[in-house]
Amino acid sequence: MTLRLNGGYLIAYNLSKCYIRAMKTVKKLTHIDEKGRPKMVDVGSKPLTERMAVARGSVYMKKETFNLIKSGNVSKGDVLNVAKLAGIMAAKKTSEIIPLCHPLNITSVDIDFRLDAKKSKIDIESRVKITGQTGVEMEALTAVSGAALTIYDMCKAVDRGMVISDIMLMEKCGGKSGIFKRK
Amino acid sequence: MTLRLNGGYLIAYNLSKCYIRAMKTVKKLTHIDEKGRPKMVDVGSKPLTERMAVARGSVYMKKETFNLIKSGNVSKGDVLNVAKLAGIMAAKKTSEIIPLCHPLNITSVDIDFRLDAKKSKIDIESRVKITGQTGVEMEALTAVSGAALTIYDMCKAVDRGMVISDIMLMEKCGGKSGIFKRK
Amino acid sequence: MTLRLNGGYLIAYNLSKCYIRAMKTVKKLTHIDEKGRPKMVDVGSKPLTERMAVARGSVYMKKETFNLIKSGNVSKGDVLNVAKLAGIMAAKKTSEIIPLCHPLNITSVDIDFRLDAKKSKIDIESRVKITGQTGVEMEALTAVSGAALTIYDMCKAVDRGMVISDIMLMEKCGGKSGIFKRK
Amino acid sequence: MTLRLNGGYLIAYNLSKCYIRAMKTVKKLTHIDEKGRPKMVDVGSKPLTERMAVARGSVYMKKETFNLIKSGNVSKGDVLNVAKLAGIMAAKKTSEIIPLCHPLNITSVDIDFRLDAKKSKIDIESRVKITGQTGVEMEALTAVSGAALTIYDMCKAVDRGMVISDIMLMEKCGGKSGIFKRK
Amino acid sequence: MTLRLNGGYLIAYNLSKCYIRAMKTVKKLTHIDEKGRPKMVDVGSKPLTERMAVARGSVYMKKETFNLIKSGNVSKGDVLNVAKLAGIMAAKKTSEIIPLCHPLNITSVDIDFRLDAKKSKIDIESRVKITGQTGVEMEALTAVSGAALTIYDMCKAVDRGMVISDIMLMEKCGGKSGIFKRK
Amino acid sequence: MTLRLNGGYLIAYNLSKCYIRAMKTVKKLTHIDEKGRPKMVDVGSKPLTERMAVARGSVYMKKETFNLIKSGNVSKGDVLNVAKLAGIMAAKKTSEIIPLCHPLNITSVDIDFRLDAKKSKIDIESRVKITGQTGVEMEALTAVSGAALTIYDMCKAVDRGMVISDIMLMEKCGGKSGIFKRK
Repeated sequence: MTLRLNGGYLIAYNLSKCYIRAMKTVKKLTHIDEKGRPKMVDVGSKPLTERMAVARGSVYMKKETFNLIKSGNVSKGDVLNVAKLAGIMAAKKTSEIIPLCHPLNITSVDIDFRLDAKKSKIDIESRVKITGQTGVEMEALTAVSGAALTIYDMCKAVDRGMVISDIMLMEKCGGKSGIFKRK
Repeated sequence: MTLRLNGGYLIAYNLSKCYIRAMKTVKKLTHIDEKGRPKMVDVGSKPLTERMAVARGSVYMKKETFNLIKSGNVSKGDVLNVAKLAGIMAAKKTSEIIPLCHPLNITSVDIDFRLDAKKSKIDIESRVKITGQTGVEMEALTAVSGAALTIYDMCKAVDRGMVISDIMLMEKCGGKSGIFKRK
Repeated sequence: MTLRLNGGYLIAYNLSKCYIRAMKTVKKLTHIDEKGRPKMVDVGSKPLTERMAVARGSVYMKKETFNLIKSGNVSKGDVLNVAKLAGIMAAKKTSEIIPLCHPLNITSVDIDFRLDAKKSKIDIESRVKITGQTGVEMEALTAVSGAALTIYDMCKAVDRGMVISDIMLMEKCGGKSGIFKRK
Repeated sequence: MTLRLNGGYLIAYNLSKCYIRAMKTVKKLTHIDEKGRPKMVDVGSKPLTERMAVARGSVYMKKETFNLIKSGNVSKGDVLNVAKLAGIMAAKKTSEIIPLCHPLNITSVDIDFRLDAKKSKIDIESRVKITGQTGVEMEALTAVSGAALTIYDMCKAVDRGMVISDIMLMEKCGGKSGIFKRK
Repeated sequence: MTLRLNGGYLIAYNLSKCYIRAMKTVKKLTHIDEKGRPKMVDVGSKPLTERMAVARGSVYMKKETFNLIKSGNVSKGDVLNVAKLAGIMAAKKTSEIIPLCHPLNITSVDIDFRLDAKKSKIDIESRVKITGQTGVEMEALTAVSGAALTIYDMCKAVDRGMVISDIMLMEKCGGKSGIFKRK
Repeated sequence: MTLRLNGGYLIAYNLSKCYIRAMKTVKKLTHIDEKGRPKMVDVGSKPLTERMAVARGSVYMKKETFNLIKSGNVSKGDVLNVAKLAGIMAAKKTSEIIPLCHPLNITSVDIDFRLDAKKSKIDIESRVKITGQTGVEMEALTAVSGAALTIYDMCKAVDRGMVISDIMLMEKCGGKSGIFKRK
């Protein structure tokens, strides 16, 4: 998706006035109102639809740390189990963490891990569902963040240099804005 | 597979039994107990010292999104102001988000942004302080994550493809484990 | 609305027994049960309707404080932006703050400020919406309170004497009890 | 305390740039940093002292509502008991409700009510204590707000027109800024 | 309900692989996925139905403590009123306390107490309702636990030996799994 | 009815006035003030001491359920791992669940399980520590309750009849009231 505005162009984009007047296309930051103040988007008129979002992220670490987690995974898997729970609970807390998110009753959160020995990283994938008036991409991204932070916390005594990267939306469907699929 | 540690080596590492006996080096995941179950580290015997942690992270985005935020920054700066507040509030919620973190009364959180036009990304830096018995690196990392997720949330209507990356600890001082400084 | 009881009168009103026997009119405190204990009203049989509530409140302050905020408002508006976010987040927390409120998934919160230079006060107006089984007047009042307290907090270093007043419901519609409009 | 700036005057106060240059006196909004962004004040260098704050507020209502609560007070007092608990719990939540407040472990909250039949209002007084590095006036004001909102919630079925007013700090002691006492 | 598996039997139950292969009957721990990791059950495809759950529990105490509470109950009933509020608020917090519970907007919580002088115990009964996609037995059990813990807290200065027991589900109806009624 | 206290007796016990005058013994409910209203005990004048509390509780279940958990324990232990995390997180939430508890920064929570095959029950033991002005028995009891509720939640699909019992304080030390040890 690009903000190319096919053929048209932005005449004025003034974030502080919160709208972008374009010749043909209006793209706006929905969380900023006309006076430049933050607002919560009104989703009351949206229909209740089934919505789903998938997000991903990775924690890069030292080989030794990776092996510690991996061996744990084989026999007990504690680091990843705690991270999974943390991700699920973080998803439920999304509207408390992100100021303009709507409180939502998500119907499902699932989190999976993939151990990438070659790059010495752990990939996290979350999948969140709801039947609601607004999407759950923030819940999916927050779940990944919560799981990643917890992996860091559980292993920080042996590896303070771990890096959390590549947190991104992979897929989203069910809303008015249509299907998003990262290529 | 062995967890070779410069010259030394593990005789037995069994994460599921939660300790790693090494001839010369003992590295352990402090959040896993001897039965392989998660535990909260006892910090009761640590002295009260002044502690500080600095963390960073970046949100990569399309040029257009970057410019929208940047122009906002010049005139009203709302996206970054909301992100800053979100980061501060997330730092205060760290022990609710990360299961084995201790509840802490942080004395200061500061969050700064750097707009990197060349790479079309926003860099986030948090700095958290406390006078306490345990460090605040998780609070610093959580502050960055909360701010990054909020930038995503505020701009997602125009750019679903943004990526949150490079969340890492830059510096940490004040505890028994000494000063950490990322090179 | 008055509790006039036209022609009728209260024979006995005993809050501790939680009902008011009137000849013709029964008015009761819905949050107190028949044994005088607090209860959460059962809203399960109410239909899902669109509901809206508007509340207001004011923060009175010294001229100097008012001018500080106002100048901020013209160029960056930080005090009011933080107050706005705080009000939105407080609305989402209503059922945690007020013991007998139902948890609700509000679909919209909006908060506006009016600077009244003559009276050296800031007026706050919140507007909360939901499609639900119960009204959102408490969410609207809580949003105003959260914004007002935050204005106080942001300015207290220069003016400890500020006063928060006139927090009241202005309008409410969408439920069985009909439309309320303050005259 | 006045913002009189004895003899001096503000040459420029530009809240958006977040500092106020005065000839002789610099008064600043401590919650806004030099770039105009909200910040959490660093209290790490302040000494641990005993601190106390007293706040007040009133709920104005119809005579009938007042009498309902009053009669309840005589026999069971449920409305005020629930309001008291709500106020205590709100004080504990202050740092979650007000974005830039520090998380604090208050050591005491007390809330008292005075029934003013002549003005048909209920006066609420809170008293909060802590041994800490920062004051508890926001906790005291939040306690009063929580109690007032709960009185409204408990009685709204009979009186939607109630007004919450006069929420203000009465007294504060124990910090560097000295004793504040409302005249 | 028994796990008798009439005529059938478990060939293999391997919780770590998270499914139980039975000849005729498959009973599984719905909160553990196929890799043995905790998961949140997907309730998105369940219909919205009215659901109700009743739970009970008891607090056993010394005769003196019982009499203190009882006398309080006669005149002001504070211990039980506080416990009731705590139970209602705990029910609202269920999905924060129990990691894999869905966030739900319960429509009603009621809590009743029965004073059993002969056994010197207080019986607590909660009744929770919702129109939703998943049941509310955890909310009912959490309400009882919250009320019981609060009775303990309020009286612990006079009786540290109190025991909380017999917390159990009494009744549940409204979901696919049918009616549960404890015999 | 009298509140005989071995040899002593109450001259007046009026819970609603919140104190009990006895000839020889004064026992009071510290959480009820002189007007019979709930209050938070002022702990500000108590010294900072190391405090510890141990609590226990049991979940009784069907043999089949017990075996499911036990087999899980041998290989992956997920039910108990989730329960352990839930207990730790519940301990951190104590002051949000129990209205008159002080917010505390606990320094350690540990939770252990004992599988009692003969009685087909799981015993839970929590151990909570703090260096603070008030004890942590409520935190220990809340940790046990949170773990027990989570065991119920994880297994309820196969056994709705489980019973949570025998939640009690085992030991407490470090405060003015001296050592408590259950016989």
